[in-house]
Amino acid sequence: MTIEKLFNPRGVAVIGSASEGKLGYELIRQMLDGGYRDVFAVNPKARGALSAPGYDSVAKIDRPVDLAVVVSPPATVPGVLEECGWAGVGAAVIITAGFSEVGNQAGEEEIKRVARQHAIRFVGPNCAGIINTAHHLFPTLETRPPAGGAALVAQSGAVGGVFLAWARDHGLGVSKFVSYGNRGDLTEIDFLDYLAGDPETQVVALYIESVADGRKFMEAVQACASQKPVIVIKAGRTQSGQRATLSHTGSMAGADAVYDAALRACGAIRVHKIEEMFDLCKGFLSVGLPKGQRIAVVTNSGGPGVLAADWAEQVGLDVAEPSPAVQARLAEFLPAHCAFKNPIDLTVEGTEEGYRETLLALLQEFDAVLALNIAPPYLDSMPLARGICDAAEQAAGQGDGDKVVVASFLPEWVVEASVPYLEERGVPNFATGERAVVALKHMADYQAHRASQRANSRSLPELPREVGRLPGAGQMLEPEAMAWLRDEGIPVPDFRFASTREEAVQGCREIGYPAVMKVVSPDVLHKSDCGGVVLNIRDDDAARAAFETIERAAAGKDFRGAVIYPLIRDAQEVLLGLSRDPQFGPVVAFGLGGIYTEIWRDVALRVAPVDRVEAAAMIREIKSLPLLEGARGQAPRDLDALADVLTTFSQLPFRYPDIGEIDLNPVFLLAEGLLVGDVRVIRRQPGETCE
Amino acid sequence: MTIEKLFNPRGVAVIGSASEGKLGYELIRQMLDGGYRDVFAVNPKARGALSAPGYDSVAKIDRPVDLAVVVSPPATVPGVLEECGWAGVGAAVIITAGFSEVGNQAGEEEIKRVARQHAIRFVGPNCAGIINTAHHLFPTLETRPPAGGAALVAQSGAVGGVFLAWARDHGLGVSKFVSYGNRGDLTEIDFLDYLAGDPETQVVALYIESVADGRKFMEAVQACASQKPVIVIKAGRTQSGQRATLSHTGSMAGADAVYDAALRACGAIRVHKIEEMFDLCKGFLSVGLPKGQRIAVVTNSGGPGVLAADWAEQVGLDVAEPSPAVQARLAEFLPAHCAFKNPIDLTVEGTEEGYRETLLALLQEFDAVLALNIAPPYLDSMPLARGICDAAEQAAGQGDGDKVVVASFLPEWVVEASVPYLEERGVPNFATGERAVVALKHMADYQAHRASQRANSRSLPELPREVGRLPGAGQMLEPEAMAWLRDEGIPVPDFRFASTREEAVQGCREIGYPAVMKVVSPDVLHKSDCGGVVLNIRDDDAARAAFETIERAAAGKDFRGAVIYPLIRDAQEVLLGLSRDPQFGPVVAFGLGGIYTEIWRDVALRVAPVDRVEAAAMIREIKSLPLLEGARGQAPRDLDALADVLTTFSQLPFRYPDIGEIDLNPVFLLAEGLLVGDVRVIRRQPGETCE
Repeated sequence: MTIEKLFNPRGVAVIGSASEGKLGYELIRQMLDGGYRDVFAVNPKARGALSAPGYDSVAKIDRPVDLAVVVSPPATVPGVLEECGWAGVGAAVIITAGFSEVGNQAGEEEIKRVARQHAIRFVGPNCAGIINTAHHLFPTLETRPPAGGAALVAQSGAVGGVFLAWARDHGLGVSKFVSYGNRGDLTEIDFLDYLAGDPETQVVALYIESVADGRKFMEAVQACASQKPVIVIKAGRTQSGQRATLSHTGSMAGADAVYDAALRACGAIRVHKIEEMFDLCKGFLSVGLPKGQRIAVVTNSGGPGVLAADWAEQVGLDVAEPSPAVQARLAEFLPAHCAFKNPIDLTVEGTEEGYRETLLALLQEFDAVLALNIAPPYLDSMPLARGICDAAEQAAGQGDGDKVVVASFLPEWVVEASVPYLEERGVPNFATGERAVVALKHMADYQAHRASQRANSRSLPELPREVGRLPGAGQMLEPEAMAWLRDEGIPVPDFRFASTREEAVQGCREIGYPAVMKVVSPDVLHKSDCGGVVLNIRDDDAARAAFETIERAAAGKDFRGAVIYPLIRDAQEVLLGLSRDPQFGPVVAFGLGGIYTEIWRDVALRVAPVDRVEAAAMIREIKSLPLLEGARGQAPRDLDALADVLTTFSQLPFRYPDIGEIDLNPVFLLAEGLLVGDVRVIRRQPGETCE
Repeated sequence: MTIEKLFNPRGVAVIGSASEGKLGYELIRQMLDGGYRDVFAVNPKARGALSAPGYDSVAKIDRPVDLAVVVSPPATVPGVLEECGWAGVGAAVIITAGFSEVGNQAGEEEIKRVARQHAIRFVGPNCAGIINTAHHLFPTLETRPPAGGAALVAQSGAVGGVFLAWARDHGLGVSKFVSYGNRGDLTEIDFLDYLAGDPETQVVALYIESVADGRKFMEAVQACASQKPVIVIKAGRTQSGQRATLSHTGSMAGADAVYDAALRACGAIRVHKIEEMFDLCKGFLSVGLPKGQRIAVVTNSGGPGVLAADWAEQVGLDVAEPSPAVQARLAEFLPAHCAFKNPIDLTVEGTEEGYRETLLALLQEFDAVLALNIAPPYLDSMPLARGICDAAEQAAGQGDGDKVVVASFLPEWVVEASVPYLEERGVPNFATGERAVVALKHMADYQAHRASQRANSRSLPELPREVGRLPGAGQMLEPEAMAWLRDEGIPVPDFRFASTREEAVQGCREIGYPAVMKVVSPDVLHKSDCGGVVLNIRDDDAARAAFETIERAAAGKDFRGAVIYPLIRDAQEVLLGLSRDPQFGPVVAFGLGGIYTEIWRDVALRVAPVDRVEAAAMIREIKSLPLLEGARGQAPRDLDALADVLTTFSQLPFRYPDIGEIDLNPVFLLAEGLLVGDVRVIRRQPGETCE
């Protein structure tokens, strides 16, 4: 397996100038400093560097070499790879820049071609290197972190640089690091696959700006996240961010809402800041998972305790009052002036024993405790740290475990000794109470997600079988689309098509009065706007008049006739939509339409297809749900039927790959069942290549 | 002026044990270390500490003493103050705890009484002391910060502890610090008044959990904010936070939304984290105010640049593309592989000149530039810092100034030298790009607020004159309330009251058909729910039937009759509300009611009264505004009339102090004018003492 060679090479050739101060030299120094010995310098002058011997060709190295680290100029890289191929080097890290990121696509294609020819797998080009701490392997110019369980995979080298420097400064252990730059060969998917099974990696952090293949990415994340937490930053959430990712990686990012839905669906934890990613790695590596969302804040300092509680509640944690029993227990040993109600304030007089006993009492019924200590300069915070660590250890030993204790000791200069002490004993310390509760929230959510996955033994739904092409050709007219939906098992109202006035009367009679009539014309997109819809038709005369109205509305257009429906009353209108994302393919949307969509953006979105469970989750997700459940004196709507239809609907683009978009808007949601009120189908153009 | 004595005392007596390790001793050490010489130890044994001489009584000190710092046990404090009074000491900082915060209200009342008697003004009790760096005065146990322009006033000592420690670590200059603890005498209002005129203070940071008097607080903030920025953390935003502030300061906090409205109205900048407060102080002290919201991100590192741009856009800054002219200018000196579109990515090859020229070009049309540099360990970031500082200086010297340059250099260990260099030359460095853009956003908003205040020469509206009491007594019935509203200039529909069937017919005739009839009874709160409303009454027979229906609906209740209105069509329903906040008194609310209020919380809130400008701002503030402006084919509504009525409405509780609550819900907002659809008035109970 090539990635094995990448991370655990028997020897490494650094190819490029090894003169002092040059990248090759710095890389060799970094690798030697990191404790890797089998490093060889390769350059035209066969110049060695430090204790690494020099060669003028990879082929001349008389020891096994599995990995080439390439820093030679871009034009030389194809030749370098060629030589590596002949020398049996199976993996390369191409740090050299100057390829697709500066418009040199041809150069990048050339190195891909050579690598393919020689079965070389490579990282980069234009990357910041890799790290495998367990193998003492540091072919990168970024900070060398301590060894540990966090793996970082980053499309941006600089994000790696920040993370790794923090890892060194705050003692976060790193297993692997990959900066994959232009993604010429190995991608985030390869690394996720590898890290899922890497015993040294307990948590995976991923920074992406785009993905190579949305569906395969989801599968890889899903597989990895079922083994260990996967934390993802997807940058380029906004217009300016997207402009930037486009310009600096040359890759097109899909809509951010789709990324969000995709990441949630496959169990990734999405965060937006490097510091959140870092904090969360620390949390996952240090402590178990909180079983639920109940958190207590224990503090010696009122103000910061309130701020942390505010923040915890704002991010969605349950900052509940302790039960009377626990409050009574606290009252046994805490002075009366302490606050017992969460935040629990031991005041500046808090003691080692006070902290220990308070934490132990609270952990009886809380899933997690944040011990927040703002140390006044004159007080020794070490006893408090001891009390906290003792409680954490005792609680971990009792019951079913997973009682989580985290800390935030501040300010830095006063707690210089107690923070390392806390972390050595397994209590992670966060820079602020706010950062601590954000990490706890993500951890509790991850635990909930895992539990629900286990309970339902769920994975990404299978893709439905393709059955053919949409009926007809060109624009699909409403009656045609309605008939097709009906055949696909999606409930539509009874309807008739009429191309003459008398057919219209006949149609209305068959449908029954009151009826509704709508224009059928490929030229009319907004039927209401041009007077092409007549509601509440009550008799034959009205039917005739309606047909005439509609005919007039389509004057000068390709008028085909009218479609007639029964008038549907007492319905709540909702909308169902299907579209295609450039990275993830079909996505399905559900909402209430109108102002709910336009002003409130109250739409649930998923990468299609969704199963019944997920469809039900989508429906529950919208904030307007009370309107469907019978708020304000309305009848509750048939949400079961809606979930069924949403499930079926979400499969259509897979059964009919020529579907580009479908809007069912409105769908009349009734107390029993539902009926599609209008439909618009857009065929995918033959030239469209996106999934 | 006593506060002058507090901050600039001619001598300080530290009253309480001065034995080594005791608070008194530590305070004396801190004061001496801070460079204050005129400090005297007062304790029963007349023990001195370090170079401070000891006395057994304040009266015996033969040098002038203006300030007593009290750390003696709580029971001794009244006596201490008594003695201070006789000795002519006019100000005290009472650090001693054990008063109202632990239920000892009597003790606190006693010290208030003694202090009042001797005209002593005091800070505390249960506080963490004060600082005046200009006077080298540090009677506190918190970290001593460097001198500078930021004043911190904090209800919580620990918040001060964090802030002051960061100030020391990151070189933020502090002018004054006050931790006022239980607020026994001097309050946030006194300090705001003082700091508004303090020449050493350029920015005021305030941490509060409650305020002593909402209206006076608003006036004080308004007065101070018109001189210099006032940054406020109001803790206790959530349920758990409020529980905490209640338990640990014993003071009741009003609704958070009201605080939010109040703070905005008086020009304060509200933040939620100590680090935001700190960053913002740094920003205000280091650079001018951005003239607008246009920001450019200049970076050498793609990924973090994208993250900063995403964050900037998310917080509401305008991360626009540079004009073609500026892009052309950039292309003259930047390599082609750089990204010119904002974020501007100079890549890892960015140079001193590149940074300088890029910033200068961008500052032609952007209000602020964030220079984000993720320094790889092998590169010297000092040239980049130089380029940035040169550009900042040149830009400041040109045109109308206020071109803002801020930086975020990372990671810490790599930029140890360049960050102090940046800050020395006046370019503030923020811990992350995200923190930098949040600070810039607040600064730009503050500038916009100041400009609009100047343009309108606005201040808090004057309180209307009291005119009397609400008509009648007991519960106000609908016809009575409608008549009163009409007299107050709020448009109500024509209406008739009918106590018999025939009066009802007569009333309907006078109003004109179609009419609406509603039950009048003090026992019926929800008229629709019990069948007490009949709509669309079309003739005399229907009028009779309607009255009977209503009579039946009120069966067994105190039935007074029916009120008759014309049927109002094609109205958009909105709601206007008045209520009383325990801290701020009357507040006025505007929204669309129904689900818009219940689900979307789409309500604009202000401390009443509002003037016409503010009323118009409230209307524009709600997200549902498009529904009033004619979205979805509806007629645009008369927002001018609405603003007039809202202004008048907001004055009512001042004209009639016995108003408790008023709901106008619905108000029928028409294409021309508006009409109140229903009204509920609740009188204030005689016992209610809140404002």
